Amino acid sequence: MRKNILLVYAHPEPTSLTRLLVAVAIDALEKQGHAIAQSDLYGMRWKAVFDADDFPSRADPTRLSFIAESAHAYATGRQTDDVASEQAKLLSADAVIFVFPLWWYAPPAIVKGWIERVYAFGFGYGYRDGGNRHRFGEGALKGKRALVCVLAGGPTADYGPRGVNGPLDQLLFPLTHGALFYPGMDVLPLHAIYGTVFVTSAAQVGAIRESWRRRVEGLFTDNPIPFRPQNGGDYPDFHTLAEHVAPGRDGLTAHIADE
Amino acid sequence: MRKNILLVYAHPEPTSLTRLLVAVAIDALEKQGHAIAQSDLYGMRWKAVFDADDFPSRADPTRLSFIAESAHAYATGRQTDDVASEQAKLLSADAVIFVFPLWWYAPPAIVKGWIERVYAFGFGYGYRDGGNRHRFGEGALKGKRALVCVLAGGPTADYGPRGVNGPLDQLLFPLTHGALFYPGMDVLPLHAIYGTVFVTSAAQVGAIRESWRRRVEGLFTDNPIPFRPQNGGDYPDFHTLAEHVAPGRDGLTAHIADE
Repeated sequence: MRKNILLVYAHPEPTSLTRLLVAVAIDALEKQGHAIAQSDLYGMRWKAVFDADDFPSRADPTRLSFIAESAHAYATGRQTDDVASEQAKLLSADAVIFVFPLWWYAPPAIVKGWIERVYAFGFGYGYRDGGNRHRFGEGALKGKRALVCVLAGGPTADYGPRGVNGPLDQLLFPLTHGALFYPGMDVLPLHAIYGTVFVTSAAQVGAIRESWRRRVEGLFTDNPIPFRPQNGGDYPDFHTLAEHVAPGRDGLTAHIADE
Repeated sequence: MRKNILLVYAHPEPTSLTRLLVAVAIDALEKQGHAIAQSDLYGMRWKAVFDADDFPSRADPTRLSFIAESAHAYATGRQTDDVASEQAKLLSADAVIFVFPLWWYAPPAIVKGWIERVYAFGFGYGYRDGGNRHRFGEGALKGKRALVCVLAGGPTADYGPRGVNGPLDQLLFPLTHGALFYPGMDVLPLHAIYGTVFVTSAAQVGAIRESWRRRVEGLFTDNPIPFRPQNGGDYPDFHTLAEHVAPGRDGLTAHIADE
């Protein structure tokens, strides 16, 4: 069945490995007959900094509260065009694919700034009742899928369970759990390419292309990360895991259900 | 003894709690007789996006490699003035204090982009031999201290050991371990203010000011987070923890020595 896919990516160099993988994703999705929208953040010269210019018509011109102004601008149709356009692309999408290099163990600033600006109060958070009741598995993006492809310069071992950098899925938990699962998306396991600085041969590139193509082909069939929904019973007070859930465990991984 | 302190902060609203805590830090440091440099990222209109404009004189004008161009620009004195100026401020500092709001479980894009652009190859990474041999406890910023003050809108419980967001020290591990400890800084435990959206009374603000003031006063005397140095023996191959270190444990917290 034809689906709508939004591709969000961040690398200015057309011949980069990042952009090559964007092209692979487009090819794989087109072969499956899907419709593709793109947010080429560098190409769009996306404004990364969330600031007063995002609120051309202020609720309170005397004092900048990001939450209050975001709520006001979103609710009254006074957002900037670039933000409203990205929100519309997200709402139209059945799945969102992100492709970016890992810089300092996190998404590039231009990706972070896309989240900060697009996730208005009432859209990305403060959904429905305006509080925190509908989040982590519920929200405006409920039912959509998210797939993140991240390219890391360093070797695989550095990101292993006991690797010196820490495991990538924990380093990117603020993105996968905190920004994608938060407004309701089903987040697939990360697709990571490690050791990109050591990629020199056409055979290596070919293998990277093929493994990524398989992940794109599994966009609607692979199993998402089983993050625990806030309102599924595991957090009876909507804040803290119940004692009987993941007993004796704490930290980021306690929020992933055992399979 | 008089020390040099660099304050890096990110909030455009002068009356925000973030900026109030910047003022508290300045007052506390001045009373101790220290010299203060400031990087007011919003006030400076800091360029957050790391892109081709950062390399006005390219090593290779035909293809943008961030690592190659960063190495070239840093080594040959061809960086942009704003980047070179921040590097000089970092090198002059005995300690760096960051103050910013937590947005989507991570530093604001403008802070992330400060790291991406200021941490040139040869300065923030690729130190000395250009490989990964001198990092996590060694590097250009060795011996300096780092203190991060972060303001979170959500309540304390959400960031508890089993809170729905995950613990803040794990969410910010990419910053504390991955960006501050990496080039050699001694990183103090985070100073977090939770529930800022519920702060309404002068008494609450007063308590927040005082607890932060005490942290600033302890800048050179409090104990840093005991992150394991890469070259201290715990990582015999410089990639993975030795079996006898934190036996049976994995993930982010395994990289913190037991006290």
